[in-house]
Order: sequence, then C-alpha cells, then structure tokens
Amino acid sequence: MGGPIQELKDIPTADTGVSPVERLHALVATDMAATDKLIHARMTSGVALIPDLAKHLIDSGGKRLRPMLTLAAAVEFIHTATLLHDDVVDESALRRGKVSANLMWGNKPSVLVGDFLFSRAFQLMVETDNLAVLDILAGASAVIAEGEVMQLKSSNNLAVTEEHYLHVVSSKTAALFAAAAEAGALLSGQGDEFVSGLRAYGENLGIAFQLVDDALDYSGRQALMGKTVGDDFREAKMTLPLILAHARAKDSDRPFWKRVIETGNQTESDLDRAITLIEQTGAMQETMARARAYADKAKASLVVMPDSDIKRALADIADFCVERAY
Amino acid sequence: MGGPIQELKDIPTADTGVSPVERLHALVATDMAATDKLIHARMTSGVALIPDLAKHLIDSGGKRLRPMLTLAAAVEFIHTATLLHDDVVDESALRRGKVSANLMWGNKPSVLVGDFLFSRAFQLMVETDNLAVLDILAGASAVIAEGEVMQLKSSNNLAVTEEHYLHVVSSKTAALFAAAAEAGALLSGQGDEFVSGLRAYGENLGIAFQLVDDALDYSGRQALMGKTVGDDFREAKMTLPLILAHARAKDSDRPFWKRVIETGNQTESDLDRAITLIEQTGAMQETMARARAYADKAKASLVVMPDSDIKRALADIADFCVERAY
Repeated sequence: MGGPIQELKDIPTADTGVSPVERLHALVATDMAATDKLIHARMTSGVALIPDLAKHLIDSGGKRLRPMLTLAAAVEFIHTATLLHDDVVDESALRRGKVSANLMWGNKPSVLVGDFLFSRAFQLMVETDNLAVLDILAGASAVIAEGEVMQLKSSNNLAVTEEHYLHVVSSKTAALFAAAAEAGALLSGQGDEFVSGLRAYGENLGIAFQLVDDALDYSGRQALMGKTVGDDFREAKMTLPLILAHARAKDSDRPFWKRVIETGNQTESDLDRAITLIEQTGAMQETMARARAYADKAKASLVVMPDSDIKRALADIADFCVERAY
Repeated sequence: MGGPIQELKDIPTADTGVSPVERLHALVATDMAATDKLIHARMTSGVALIPDLAKHLIDSGGKRLRPMLTLAAAVEFIHTATLLHDDVVDESALRRGKVSANLMWGNKPSVLVGDFLFSRAFQLMVETDNLAVLDILAGASAVIAEGEVMQLKSSNNLAVTEEHYLHVVSSKTAALFAAAAEAGALLSGQGDEFVSGLRAYGENLGIAFQLVDDALDYSGRQALMGKTVGDDFREAKMTLPLILAHARAKDSDRPFWKRVIETGNQTESDLDRAITLIEQTGAMQETMARARAYADKAKASLVVMPDSDIKRALADIADFCVERAY
C-alpha cells in the first residue's frame, strides 16, 4: 500500500500549470500560515531530540492537505506520529525522498517522538474547546491503529480478500481524511447534513488516494516522479492490483504468485513479470476505475456545500488525486 | 530505572498481613469493579490481536493504583500503552514475570496496540465531559514521552547528573501519578487547594516509588521477590545508586566504572562488585533516604484532605512504597 499515507503531490496540471492542491492552499493562505506557525511553536520541547526529529519529517513537505481541511495543527501531529510509527513498523529507509527518521535516529526515538506528538495533538485539541472534535479524532486514531494491525496480516498471504483490503484502506488511510473533514465542518459550526457530507468527502477521497497510491507502486509513472517502484511487491503486500491479478490469473501463472508472495522468494526480474501480469489481467485498469469511482463519490458528497472557489478546489483535488497517475 | 513503571506489589505487611494497597482497594471495591468492567469492555476491537495483546498485559496484574486514584480506565490505558512502547524501546524480555508482549507478538503489534490504547484512553476521557481532565492527562502523556527520550541518553554515560536523573524520573514516572491524582481530585469537584495537594501527593509518591525501584535493582531483596537483579546494571543505565557510587568512588575504583558503564564491557562477577561498591560508598543508603524524604513529602501533601480511611490508606501506601525494600 505504498506503506504509509502519502501526501498529494503538487505536480503541475497540464492546463493551468498549478495543481488544485496549490490552488486550495492559496485560497486559505492566511490560515495556513497561522497553522504553520502553530505547528512549529507546539513542536518545541526542552528535549532537543524531539523537535529535531519531528521537524525533519514535518519539513519534508507534504502538502498538509488534511490540516487545510481542519486548519488544525493537531491533525498534522497525529499524521506525523502515525508516519513515524509506520516507518518503524515497516522498517522503511526513505520517507518523502529523505532518509527516514527511524534510520537517522533509530527506532527508539521514533516510537517515543511519535507518542509525544500524539499527546501534543490531544493537548492542541483541548484548545478547540470542543469535545466532539476530540472524540472524532481520538476515534480516528484508534481506527488507524486497528487498520495498521490488520495490515500486518496482509503480507505474504494470497488469501487476502478485496473486502479485507478495503477495510484496511478505510481504516489506516481514509479514517484521518474523514475525521479531519468532519471535525473541520463541525468546528466551523455547520449543521448535521453538511458535516456528514464533508465526512463522506474525506472518506471517499482517502480511499481513492490510497488505491491510486497502490496502483502507482506498479507503474512506470511512479519512476518518472522520482519514487521507487515495487516497494509493496518486495514486501509481498497484498494490495488491490495484486489481489485482482491473482484472482484473474491463468493456472500457469499461479505458481509464480505463490513463489513471490507466499514464500517471498523473489529474483531480479520478478517485478517486471508482476507488472506485466497486473497489466495483462486488467488489474491495473480495474484498480484505477475503482479509484475514479471513489473520487466521483467524494465529489458528489460536496453537494451539501454552496458553490465557492473552495468547493471547486476540493472537487478538483478529488479529480487530481486520480489523474496524477496518468 | 527498572526500566518501566512498575506497580506497587501487594506484599503482606508484617503487622496486619494486608498491604495498604489492598486496603485502599477494599475501600473502593465497588468503583474498582466498575472500572475493571469498563477496562475490559473498552479494550475490545474487531481486530482480535488488539484485545489479546492488551489483555495479556492488563491481566498480568499490577494493583491498578493509579486508576484507583482517578477511578478511570483511561489512566490504565495510558499506563499500558506506555509499558508496551517502553518494552519495545528497552527490548525487554519480561514484564510482570510474564514473557513481554514484544517478545510474544513482536515489536510491530506492540507499537500499534500501544497507539490503539492511547487513542482509546482519549476517547474514554471525552466521556468524562471535562476538558481540564483531558488537558492534564494529555500533558502528562507528552511529559512521559519527553522523559523516555531523555532517558535514552542516560545509558553508558557516567557524566549523567543527579539533576538529570531526577528530571527523567519526574517525567517518565511521577507525571502519570501526579496527573491521575490531580484529575481524580478535579473530577470529584474539589477546590484548588485540594487538587494541588493531591497532585503533590502523586508527584512525590511517584518519585519515591521510582527511587526504591532503582535501589531494588541492586538489592538481594529483589531476588527474594522473584525478580531479576542487575537489569539496569547490564543495560548500563545511570540510576541514582550508580550515580552516587560513582561520585563517591575512590580513584582506584574509577577504571571499573569506566569499563562496565562507558564501554559496557562486563563480566560475570562485575554485578557483585558493583553492589559491593554501592553499599560501601553509602549510595544505597542515600538512595533509600531520598526515597523516604519523597514519601514523607507525599504524606505531608495529604494535609488538604479531611481524615478518613482513604486518607490513612493513601498515607500508608507512601510508607509502604519505601518499606517494601526492607
């Protein structure tokens, strides 16, 4: 699953040369600047290693899409804490193109600084003076952890179903998108229908985002973006492209999947063969079609919002989330 | 530092045969039963590994002293989450006399189930409907993480000062005792003076508790209790007995400390020699005298409480915390 949640990248679009993420960013620039300031102010700790390590990750970029949705630094802290723990769990060597924090500082500080950021997130949320927001984000954090635990069982296991995969994606990725959008709507004093609509937007955008991420891991497009291809394959993670390719495999290809996934015994040329099979069976196309359907659901959920530049930017982000793969 | 926080044990006292922890437990038995029920109800998750792993640790016992103080399952969850992450960080093999969760299930689930329990703790706290309580416990969680990060630098380092050591103890151990006592007093509707008094009780009890724990790691008494001796020594952790023994060391003993702590190069008989030096320099006696002073401060802080069986039990617990070492 590309392992962790990743930010939408600000690849220029063909027409305007400005990505919709950048456009939304510009629309809320003042609030974002204030959020940035808060993030850096609240990252401080008398223990120097804590801000050093957290800053390494937070400054690595990412478009802060979720914090834009809530304008709350708390979400960024939860997100960063999740990434830190995720990299420990995945034994990642790279994060956002930089050496990962666990490699630079070791697993111990990564676990502990993650805990620190989780705690700071809840301290920040107390400042919103809104227990419902706290409940939503604490609930999302619990669901993310559940999703990560579920995912542990997904490697080296050809029996993983589409249903299990979608449950993991919905938990580990979409839960924070959904919670951030819901909490943001709630904090801004919107009614029930609006709040549910925004939650649905976040949930569906999150799923679309992860499906595309998992598709890109088997795509040459990913290499063009300067990222490695085949990370999930090498970890024998059962993502949707692989689940579908295996379900549609000819009998003669089954021993291949058994060897590379179940035994994890891979050779140099196996990734190329996997990519070929994922293309030939239509698994890649089907994964992208599903992502498109979730993005469309996200856009449809915005019906609760009156027309505005922000609404259009949110809708465009859903499109962009899928289109970045082409 | 005996690594993690450990529970006060229910060793029978010479006179009544019932430990003060047991007595306090009996005084609030009905509430404790309700807390137990809540703990087990809220530990559930559709992901079976989560309750399995959490139950392993929670059912390993511990007297639930801190939850008694707040009557809140939330504190137990934060405590358990901290233990899980602590065991990963310390690479512990044993916890409460059982094989540690990280050894049984691996580091990955331990990190993630810890995150789950942290999140559940905050969800539970939302149910208290009291933002001040949330703030106190979120603050304590951040301070605990800071303390653990500080502690990482304490190993293999003879330059660690008493001040640094006390700062670590105050953060990683006493912060949760203090927060639990403060939040409990606040939730029960007490005034400022009472709340501060209870916070001071928790803070000083926590420090006394950790000092005794660190002393016991170099004591034959620990072996009688069925626990291993010398864990801190083998990890070259700079706890107070060692800091004092090194500060008071004769010139002829300095190369010994340099070898066993700074280079970590230890042989079979080194622990015995360390224990002898800690006794001979008076470092053991001094550590226990300091613990006694903190326990006395804890008792004095109870002046804000009217006389009651519970107040007497709390005072006795402070005494017992020190006396268990003899």
